[in-house]
Amino acid sequence: MRRTPDYSVYVVTDRALAGGRPLADVVAAALDGGAGIVQVREKILDSRAFFDEVLAVIRVARALGRPVIVNDRVDVALAAGADGVHVGQGDLPCEAVRRMAGPERIVGVSVGSVAEAVAAERAGADYLGISPVFATPTKTDAPPATGLDGLRRIRQAVRLPLVAIGGIHAGNAADVIRAGADGVAVVSAVMAAADPRAAAAGLVRAVAEGRNLSGIMAREERR
Amino acid sequence: MRRTPDYSVYVVTDRALAGGRPLADVVAAALDGGAGIVQVREKILDSRAFFDEVLAVIRVARALGRPVIVNDRVDVALAAGADGVHVGQGDLPCEAVRRMAGPERIVGVSVGSVAEAVAAERAGADYLGISPVFATPTKTDAPPATGLDGLRRIRQAVRLPLVAIGGIHAGNAADVIRAGADGVAVVSAVMAAADPRAAAAGLVRAVAEGRNLSGIMAREERR
Repeated sequence: MRRTPDYSVYVVTDRALAGGRPLADVVAAALDGGAGIVQVREKILDSRAFFDEVLAVIRVARALGRPVIVNDRVDVALAAGADGVHVGQGDLPCEAVRRMAGPERIVGVSVGSVAEAVAAERAGADYLGISPVFATPTKTDAPPATGLDGLRRIRQAVRLPLVAIGGIHAGNAADVIRAGADGVAVVSAVMAAADPRAAAAGLVRAVAEGRNLSGIMAREERR
Repeated sequence: MRRTPDYSVYVVTDRALAGGRPLADVVAAALDGGAGIVQVREKILDSRAFFDEVLAVIRVARALGRPVIVNDRVDVALAAGADGVHVGQGDLPCEAVRRMAGPERIVGVSVGSVAEAVAAERAGADYLGISPVFATPTKTDAPPATGLDGLRRIRQAVRLPLVAIGGIHAGNAADVIRAGADGVAVVSAVMAAADPRAAAAGLVRAVAEGRNLSGIMAREERR
Protein backbone atom coordinates (compact mmCIF):
# COMPACT_ATOMS: atom_id res chain seq x y z
CA MET A 1 0.00 0.00 0.00
CA ARG A 2 1.07 3.56 -0.68
CA ARG A 3 2.61 5.55 2.16
CA THR A 4 0.71 8.74 3.03
CA PRO A 5 2.81 11.73 1.93
CA ASP A 6 3.97 14.37 4.38
CA TYR A 7 1.70 17.26 3.38
CA SER A 8 3.09 19.65 6.05
CA VAL A 9 4.90 21.89 3.57
CA TYR A 10 3.73 21.42 -0.01
CA VAL A 11 5.57 23.38 -2.71
CA VAL A 12 3.82 24.37 -5.94
CA THR A 13 6.13 25.41 -8.78
CA ASP A 14 5.97 28.60 -10.82
CA ARG A 15 8.65 29.15 -13.46
CA ALA A 16 8.05 32.90 -13.65
CA LEU A 17 8.55 33.33 -9.89
CA ALA A 18 11.71 31.20 -10.03
CA GLY A 19 13.23 33.88 -12.23
CA GLY A 20 16.16 32.58 -14.22
CA ARG A 21 16.84 29.68 -11.82
CA PRO A 22 16.20 26.15 -13.10
CA LEU A 23 12.95 24.94 -11.54
CA ALA A 24 14.50 21.64 -10.42
CA ASP A 25 17.21 23.54 -8.49
CA VAL A 26 14.66 25.63 -6.57
CA VAL A 27 12.63 22.49 -5.85
CA ALA A 28 15.73 20.59 -4.70
CA ALA A 29 16.59 23.39 -2.25
CA ALA A 30 13.02 23.52 -0.90
CA LEU A 31 12.92 19.73 -0.38
CA ASP A 32 16.30 19.89 1.30
CA GLY A 33 14.84 22.55 3.60
CA GLY A 34 12.08 20.17 4.65
CA ALA A 35 9.24 20.47 2.12
CA GLY A 36 7.55 17.07 1.94
CA ILE A 37 5.91 17.12 -1.47
CA VAL A 38 6.00 19.14 -4.70
CA GLN A 39 3.43 19.91 -7.37
CA VAL A 40 4.61 20.90 -10.84
CA ARG A 41 2.21 23.49 -12.22
CA GLU A 42 2.63 24.88 -15.72
CA LYS A 43 0.23 26.92 -17.80
CA ILE A 44 2.38 28.21 -20.65
CA LEU A 45 4.87 25.58 -21.88
CA ASP A 46 3.80 23.10 -24.53
CA SER A 47 3.18 19.51 -23.43
CA ARG A 48 6.64 18.18 -24.28
CA ALA A 49 8.45 20.93 -22.36
CA PHE A 50 6.09 20.43 -19.40
CA PHE A 51 6.81 16.69 -19.55
CA ASP A 52 10.58 17.36 -19.58
CA GLU A 53 10.17 19.72 -16.62
CA VAL A 54 8.27 17.07 -14.65
CA LEU A 55 11.01 14.52 -15.41
CA ALA A 56 13.66 16.94 -14.09
CA VAL A 57 11.69 17.57 -10.87
CA ILE A 58 11.10 13.82 -10.39
CA ARG A 59 14.86 13.23 -10.59
CA VAL A 60 15.63 15.59 -7.71
CA ALA A 61 12.57 14.64 -5.62
CA ARG A 62 13.09 10.89 -5.92
CA ALA A 63 16.66 11.24 -4.69
CA LEU A 64 15.13 12.58 -1.46
CA GLY A 65 12.19 10.14 -1.40
CA ARG A 66 9.55 12.86 -1.88
CA PRO A 67 6.48 12.51 -4.12
CA VAL A 68 5.87 14.65 -7.23
CA ILE A 69 2.35 15.71 -8.20
CA VAL A 70 1.45 17.09 -11.65
CA ASN A 71 -1.12 19.86 -11.96
CA ASP A 72 -4.10 19.29 -14.28
CA ARG A 73 -2.45 17.01 -16.88
CA VAL A 74 -3.12 13.37 -16.03
CA ASP A 75 -1.43 12.34 -19.27
CA VAL A 76 1.77 14.20 -18.41
CA ALA A 77 1.72 12.61 -14.93
CA LEU A 78 1.29 9.10 -16.35
CA ALA A 79 3.84 9.56 -19.14
CA ALA A 80 6.46 10.91 -16.72
CA GLY A 81 5.75 8.36 -13.99
CA ALA A 82 4.80 11.02 -11.42
CA ASP A 83 3.36 10.03 -8.03
CA GLY A 84 0.08 11.82 -8.51
CA VAL A 85 -2.02 14.50 -10.09
CA HIS A 86 -3.84 17.55 -8.75
CA VAL A 87 -6.99 18.91 -10.39
CA GLY A 88 -9.10 21.98 -9.82
CA GLN A 89 -12.82 22.50 -10.31
CA GLY A 90 -12.14 23.60 -13.90
CA ASP A 91 -10.09 20.50 -14.74
CA LEU A 92 -11.20 16.95 -15.57
CA PRO A 93 -13.77 15.39 -13.19
CA CYS A 94 -12.21 13.62 -10.19
CA GLU A 95 -13.88 10.26 -11.02
CA ALA A 96 -12.31 10.27 -14.51
CA VAL A 97 -8.94 11.30 -13.06
CA ARG A 98 -9.04 8.46 -10.52
CA ARG A 99 -9.89 5.93 -13.27
CA MET A 100 -6.91 7.06 -15.36
CA ALA A 101 -4.49 7.49 -12.44
CA GLY A 102 -5.30 4.11 -10.91
CA PRO A 103 -5.59 3.30 -7.20
CA GLU A 104 -1.90 3.79 -6.35
CA ARG A 105 -1.33 7.32 -7.62
CA ILE A 106 -2.23 10.28 -5.41
CA VAL A 107 -5.22 12.35 -6.57
CA GLY A 108 -5.68 15.81 -5.09
CA VAL A 109 -8.61 18.15 -5.73
CA SER A 110 -8.88 21.89 -5.12
CA VAL A 111 -12.06 22.86 -3.30
CA GLY A 112 -13.38 26.18 -2.07
CA SER A 113 -16.51 25.13 -0.18
CA VAL A 114 -17.96 22.37 2.00
CA ALA A 115 -20.07 21.12 -0.93
CA GLU A 116 -17.03 20.81 -3.21
CA ALA A 117 -15.04 19.13 -0.43
CA VAL A 118 -17.72 16.52 0.25
CA ALA A 119 -18.12 15.85 -3.49
CA ALA A 120 -14.36 15.40 -3.99
CA GLU A 121 -14.10 13.04 -1.01
CA ARG A 122 -16.94 10.92 -2.45
CA ALA A 123 -15.34 11.01 -5.91
CA GLY A 124 -12.16 9.36 -4.64
CA ALA A 125 -9.71 12.17 -3.85
CA ASP A 126 -6.74 11.35 -1.56
CA TYR A 127 -6.35 14.89 -0.23
CA LEU A 128 -8.00 18.26 -0.71
CA GLY A 129 -6.42 21.60 -1.53
CA ILE A 130 -8.41 24.33 0.22
CA SER A 131 -8.03 27.12 -2.27
CA PRO A 132 -7.67 29.98 -1.74
CA VAL A 133 -7.61 30.35 2.04
CA PHE A 134 -6.41 33.93 1.70
CA ALA A 135 -6.52 36.22 -1.33
CA THR A 136 -3.40 35.82 -3.47
CA PRO A 137 -1.81 37.53 -6.47
CA THR A 138 -0.55 34.19 -7.93
CA LYS A 139 -3.90 33.02 -9.27
CA THR A 140 -5.90 35.88 -10.73
CA ASP A 141 -8.81 33.61 -11.72
CA ALA A 142 -9.26 32.21 -8.20
CA PRO A 143 -12.66 32.09 -6.48
CA PRO A 144 -13.26 34.09 -3.25
CA ALA A 145 -11.03 33.19 -0.27
CA THR A 146 -12.48 30.72 2.27
CA GLY A 147 -10.72 32.38 5.21
CA LEU A 148 -9.87 30.41 8.35
CA ASP A 149 -13.59 30.02 9.14
CA GLY A 150 -14.22 28.36 5.77
CA LEU A 151 -11.27 26.05 6.38
CA ARG A 152 -12.69 25.07 9.81
CA ARG A 153 -16.09 24.27 8.27
CA ILE A 154 -14.47 22.03 5.61
CA ARG A 155 -12.37 20.33 8.35
CA GLN A 156 -15.59 19.37 10.15
CA ALA A 157 -17.21 18.03 6.96
CA VAL A 158 -14.54 15.64 5.59
CA ARG A 159 -11.91 13.17 6.81
CA LEU A 160 -9.30 13.63 4.04
CA PRO A 161 -5.98 15.42 4.63
CA LEU A 162 -6.40 19.15 3.94
CA VAL A 163 -3.69 21.28 2.37
CA ALA A 164 -4.40 25.00 2.56
CA ILE A 165 -3.18 27.26 -0.26
CA GLY A 166 -3.40 30.95 -1.09
CA GLY A 167 -1.52 33.79 0.56
CA ILE A 168 0.25 31.52 3.06
CA HIS A 169 3.72 32.34 4.43
CA ALA A 170 5.77 31.62 7.58
CA GLY A 171 3.92 34.41 9.39
CA ASN A 172 0.42 32.90 9.10
CA ALA A 173 1.11 29.16 8.55
CA ALA A 174 0.62 28.30 12.25
CA ASP A 175 -2.85 29.91 12.21
CA VAL A 176 -3.79 27.81 9.18
CA ILE A 177 -2.67 24.60 10.91
CA ARG A 178 -4.58 25.55 14.07
CA ALA A 179 -7.69 26.06 11.92
CA GLY A 180 -7.49 22.40 10.88
CA ALA A 181 -5.15 22.12 7.89
CA ASP A 182 -2.74 19.16 7.74
CA GLY A 183 -0.32 21.18 5.69
CA VAL A 184 0.32 24.44 3.89
CA ALA A 185 0.91 24.78 0.17
CA VAL A 186 2.94 27.71 -1.05
CA VAL A 187 3.94 29.10 -4.41
CA SER A 188 5.65 32.47 -4.08
CA ALA A 189 6.81 31.98 -0.44
CA VAL A 190 9.27 29.38 -1.78
CA MET A 191 9.54 29.87 -5.55
CA ALA A 192 10.29 33.60 -5.29
CA ALA A 193 12.51 33.26 -2.20
CA ALA A 194 16.18 34.21 -2.55
CA ASP A 195 16.92 31.17 -0.33
CA PRO A 196 14.23 28.50 -1.01
CA ARG A 197 15.89 26.09 1.48
CA ALA A 198 15.59 28.62 4.33
CA ALA A 199 12.06 29.56 3.21
CA ALA A 200 10.93 25.91 3.35
CA ALA A 201 12.65 25.41 6.73
CA GLY A 202 10.84 28.47 8.10
CA LEU A 203 7.51 27.03 6.97
CA VAL A 204 8.32 23.65 8.55
CA ARG A 205 8.96 25.43 11.87
CA ALA A 206 5.72 27.45 11.58
CA VAL A 207 3.69 24.30 10.86
CA ALA A 208 5.28 22.54 13.86
CA GLU A 209 4.46 25.56 16.03
CA GLY A 210 0.83 25.46 14.85
CA ARG A 211 0.63 21.76 15.71
CA ASN A 212 2.18 22.24 19.15
CA LEU A 213 -0.25 25.05 19.91
CA SER A 214 -3.13 22.91 18.65
CA GLY A 215 -1.98 20.11 20.96
CA ILE A 216 -1.67 22.47 23.93
CA MET A 217 -5.10 23.94 23.20
CA ALA A 218 -6.64 20.45 22.91
CA ARG A 219 -5.08 19.44 26.25
CA GLU A 220 -6.31 22.67 27.85
CA GLU A 221 -9.82 21.93 26.59
CA ARG A 222 -9.72 18.42 28.05
CA ARG A 223 -8.96 19.74 31.57
CA MET B 1 -9.96 -5.12 -34.91
CA ARG B 2 -10.41 -1.42 -35.48
CA ARG B 3 -11.71 -0.28 -38.85
CA THR B 4 -9.38 2.16 -40.68
CA PRO B 5 -11.01 5.60 -40.69
CA ASP B 6 -11.83 7.44 -43.89
CA TYR B 7 -9.14 10.14 -43.83
CA SER B 8 -10.25 11.69 -47.18
CA VAL B 9 -11.64 14.87 -45.61
CA TYR B 10 -10.47 15.42 -42.03
CA VAL B 11 -11.93 18.39 -40.17
CA VAL B 12 -9.98 20.11 -37.38
CA THR B 13 -12.04 22.35 -35.10
CA ASP B 14 -11.37 25.97 -34.19
CA ARG B 15 -13.88 27.73 -31.95
CA ALA B 16 -12.73 31.20 -32.96
CA LEU B 17 -13.25 30.45 -36.68
CA ALA B 18 -16.70 28.97 -35.94
CA GLY B 19 -17.75 32.42 -34.76
CA GLY B 20 -20.81 32.28 -32.54
CA ARG B 21 -21.94 28.89 -33.88
CA PRO B 22 -21.78 25.89 -31.49
CA LEU B 23 -18.79 23.79 -32.49
CA ALA B 24 -20.82 20.58 -32.52
CA ASP B 25 -23.28 22.11 -35.03
CA VAL B 26 -20.50 23.07 -37.45
CA VAL B 27 -18.97 19.61 -37.07
CA ALA B 28 -22.33 17.91 -37.62
CA ALA B 29 -22.84 19.85 -40.86
CA ALA B 30 -19.31 19.01 -42.08
CA LEU B 31 -19.77 15.30 -41.34
CA ASP B 32 -23.15 15.39 -43.07
CA GLY B 33 -21.38 16.92 -46.08
CA GLY B 34 -19.01 13.95 -46.22
CA ALA B 35 -16.10 14.65 -43.86
CA GLY B 36 -14.92 11.27 -42.54
CA ILE B 37 -13.20 12.20 -39.29
CA VAL B 38 -12.93 15.14 -36.91
CA GLN B 39 -10.20 16.35 -34.57
CA VAL B 40 -11.14 18.58 -31.64
CA ARG B 41 -8.37 21.10 -31.12
CA GLU B 42 -8.49 23.60 -28.27
CA LYS B 43 -5.76 25.84 -26.92
CA ILE B 44 -7.64 28.29 -24.69
CA LEU B 45 -10.43 26.59 -22.73
CA ASP B 46 -9.68 24.97 -19.38
CA SER B 47 -9.62 21.17 -19.24
CA ARG B 48 -13.19 20.71 -18.09
CA ALA B 49 -14.65 22.92 -20.83
CA PHE B 50 -12.46 21.14 -23.43
CA PHE B 51 -13.71 17.80 -22.08
CA ASP B 52 -17.34 18.98 -22.37
CA GLU B 53 -16.66 20.17 -25.93
CA VAL B 54 -15.23 16.77 -26.87
CA LEU B 55 -18.29 15.04 -25.40
CA ALA B 56 -20.57 17.26 -27.50
CA VAL B 57 -18.63 16.51 -30.69
CA ILE B 58 -18.60 12.77 -29.90
CA ARG B 59 -22.40 12.83 -29.63
CA VAL B 60 -22.89 14.22 -33.14
CA ALA B 61 -20.05 12.19 -34.72
CA ARG B 62 -21.07 8.86 -33.23
CA ALA B 63 -24.61 9.30 -34.59
CA LEU B 64 -22.99 9.28 -38.06
CA GLY B 65 -20.43 6.56 -37.23
CA ARG B 66 -17.40 8.87 -37.60
CA PRO B 67 -14.37 8.83 -35.30
CA VAL B 68 -13.39 11.75 -33.05
CA ILE B 69 -9.72 12.54 -32.39
CA VAL B 70 -8.55 14.83 -29.55
CA ASN B 71 -5.60 17.14 -30.10
CA ASP B 72 -2.67 16.94 -27.64
CA ARG B 73 -4.57 15.89 -24.48
CA VAL B 74 -4.46 12.11 -24.09
CA ASP B 75 -6.21 12.45 -20.71
CA VAL B 76 -9.12 14.38 -22.22
CA ALA B 77 -9.39 11.75 -25.00
CA LEU B 78 -9.44 8.87 -22.50
CA ALA B 79 -11.83 10.58 -20.08
CA ALA B 80 -14.27 11.45 -22.87
CA GLY B 81 -14.01 8.07 -24.60
CA ALA B 82 -12.77 9.57 -27.87
CA ASP B 83 -11.56 7.32 -30.70
CA GLY B 84 -8.04 8.67 -30.76
CA VAL B 85 -5.53 11.38 -30.10
CA HIS B 86 -3.32 13.53 -32.30
CA VAL B 87 0.02 14.89 -31.12
CA GLY B 88 2.54 17.27 -32.62
CA GLN B 89 6.31 17.36 -32.25
CA GLY B 90 5.89 19.66 -29.21
CA ASP B 91 3.44 17.33 -27.46
CA LEU B 92 4.03 14.12 -25.49
CA PRO B 93 6.29 11.52 -27.18
CA CYS B 94 4.42 9.12 -29.47
CA GLU B 95 5.59 6.02 -27.55
CA ALA B 96 4.12 7.38 -24.29
CA VAL B 97 0.91 8.37 -26.07
CA ARG B 98 0.54 4.87 -27.54
CA ARG B 99 1.08 3.28 -24.12
CA MET B 100 -1.65 5.45 -22.56
CA ALA B 101 -4.05 5.26 -25.52
CA GLY B 102 -3.78 1.48 -25.84
CA PRO B 103 -3.68 -0.53 -29.07
CA GLU B 104 -7.29 0.19 -30.13
CA ARG B 105 -7.31 3.99 -30.10
CA ILE B 106 -6.06 5.90 -33.15
CA VAL B 107 -2.78 7.77 -32.63
CA GLY B 108 -1.86 10.45 -35.16
CA VAL B 109 1.39 12.42 -35.24
CA SER B 110 2.20 15.68 -37.04
CA VAL B 111 5.45 15.53 -39.00
CA GLY B 112 7.19 18.03 -41.21
CA SER B 113 10.09 16.00 -42.58
CA VAL B 114 11.07 12.50 -43.71
CA ALA B 115 13.04 11.99 -40.47
CA GLU B 116 10.05 12.88 -38.29
CA ALA B 117 7.76 10.69 -40.42
CA VAL B 118 10.03 7.63 -40.16
CA ALA B 119 10.40 8.17 -36.38
CA ALA B 120 6.63 8.46 -35.84
CA GLU B 121 5.98 5.33 -37.92
CA ARG B 122 8.51 3.41 -35.80
CA ALA B 123 7.02 4.84 -32.57
CA GLY B 124 3.61 3.34 -33.32
CA ALA B 125 1.57 6.07 -35.04
CA ASP B 126 -1.54 4.99 -37.01
CA TYR B 127 -1.44 7.91 -39.43
CA LEU B 128 0.69 10.98 -40.05
CA GLY B 129 -0.36 14.59 -40.41
CA ILE B 130 1.95 16.29 -42.90
CA SER B 131 2.05 19.76 -41.46
CA PRO B 132 2.09 22.30 -42.89
CA VAL B 133 2.01 21.43 -46.59
CA PHE B 134 1.34 25.06 -47.49
CA ALA B 135 1.86 28.18 -45.36
CA THR B 136 -1.22 28.94 -43.28
CA PRO B 137 -2.44 31.75 -41.04
CA THR B 138 -4.17 29.30 -38.61
CA LYS B 139 -1.00 28.14 -36.88
CA THR B 140 1.43 30.99 -36.39
CA ASP B 141 4.00 28.76 -34.63
CA ALA B 142 4.14 26.27 -37.49
CA PRO B 143 7.44 25.08 -39.00
CA PRO B 144 8.26 25.82 -42.69
CA ALA B 145 5.85 24.35 -45.25
CA THR B 146 6.86 21.00 -46.80
CA GLY B 147 5.31 21.85 -50.15
CA LEU B 148 4.09 19.13 -52.51
CA ASP B 149 7.69 17.95 -53.05
CA GLY B 150 8.15 17.41 -49.31
CA LEU B 151 4.87 15.48 -49.21
CA ARG B 152 6.05 13.25 -52.10
CA ARG B 153 9.33 12.51 -50.28
CA ILE B 154 7.47 11.51 -47.11
CA ARG B 155 5.09 9.34 -49.18
CA GLN B 156 8.10 7.39 -50.49
CA ALA B 157 9.56 6.94 -46.99
CA VAL B 158 6.62 5.54 -44.98
CA ARG B 159 3.63 3.21 -45.38
CA LEU B 160 1.18 4.93 -42.99
CA PRO B 161 -1.84 6.89 -44.23
CA LEU B 162 -0.89 10.55 -44.78
CA VAL B 163 -3.21 13.43 -44.06
CA ALA B 164 -1.95 16.75 -45.42
CA ILE B 165 -2.78 19.94 -43.53
CA GLY B 166 -2.00 23.63 -43.92
CA GLY B 167 -3.49 26.02 -46.44
CA ILE B 168 -5.62 23.35 -48.13
CA HIS B 169 -8.96 24.16 -49.77
CA ALA B 170 -11.18 22.78 -52.56
CA GLY B 171 -8.98 24.53 -55.14
CA ASN B 172 -5.74 22.70 -54.28
CA ALA B 173 -6.94 19.49 -52.56
CA ALA B 174 -6.70 17.43 -55.78
CA ASP B 175 -3.03 18.44 -56.16
CA VAL B 176 -2.32 17.31 -52.60
CA ILE B 177 -3.94 13.92 -53.23
CA ARG B 178 -1.99 13.51 -56.48
CA ALA B 179 1.21 14.21 -54.53
CA GLY B 180 0.50 11.17 -52.37
CA ALA B 181 -1.78 12.21 -49.51
CA ASP B 182 -4.58 9.85 -48.47
CA GLY B 183 -6.63 12.76 -47.24
CA VAL B 184 -6.74 16.47 -46.62
CA ALA B 185 -7.20 18.08 -43.22
CA VAL B 186 -8.74 21.51 -43.06
CA VAL B 187 -9.45 24.06 -40.36
CA SER B 188 -10.66 27.34 -41.82
CA ALA B 189 -11.95 25.88 -45.11
CA VAL B 190 -14.73 24.23 -43.09
CA MET B 191 -14.84 25.94 -39.68
CA ALA B 192 -15.06 29.45 -41.15
CA ALA B 193 -17.37 28.47 -44.04
CA ALA B 194 -20.84 30.00 -44.11
CA ASP B 195 -22.06 26.54 -45.22
CA PRO B 196 -19.81 23.88 -43.65
CA ARG B 197 -21.83 21.06 -45.26
CA ALA B 198 -21.23 22.46 -48.76
CA ALA B 199 -17.59 23.18 -47.93
CA ALA B 200 -17.01 19.56 -46.84
CA ALA B 201 -18.86 18.26 -49.91
CA GLY B 202 -16.65 20.40 -52.17
CA LEU B 203 -13.54 18.95 -50.54
CA VAL B 204 -14.89 15.39 -50.95
CA ARG B 205 -15.33 16.07 -54.70
CA ALA B 206 -11.84 17.58 -54.99
CA VAL B 207 -10.26 14.57 -53.26
CA ALA B 208 -12.17 12.19 -55.56
CA GLU B 209 -10.96 14.19 -58.56
CA GLY B 210 -7.36 13.97 -57.31
CA ARG B 211 -7.71 10.20 -56.93
CA ASN B 212 -9.22 9.76 -60.40
CA LEU B 213 -6.45 11.82 -61.94
CA SER B 214 -3.87 9.80 -59.98
CA GLY B 215 -5.42 6.63 -61.36
CA ILE B 216 -5.45 7.95 -64.93
CA MET B 217 -1.82 9.11 -64.59
CA ALA B 218 -0.76 5.71 -63.22
CA ARG B 219 -2.48 3.98 -66.14
CA GLU B 220 -0.83 6.38 -68.59
CA GLU B 221 2.56 5.60 -67.09
CA ARG B 222 1.97 1.88 -67.40
CA ARG B 223 1.35 2.14 -71.16
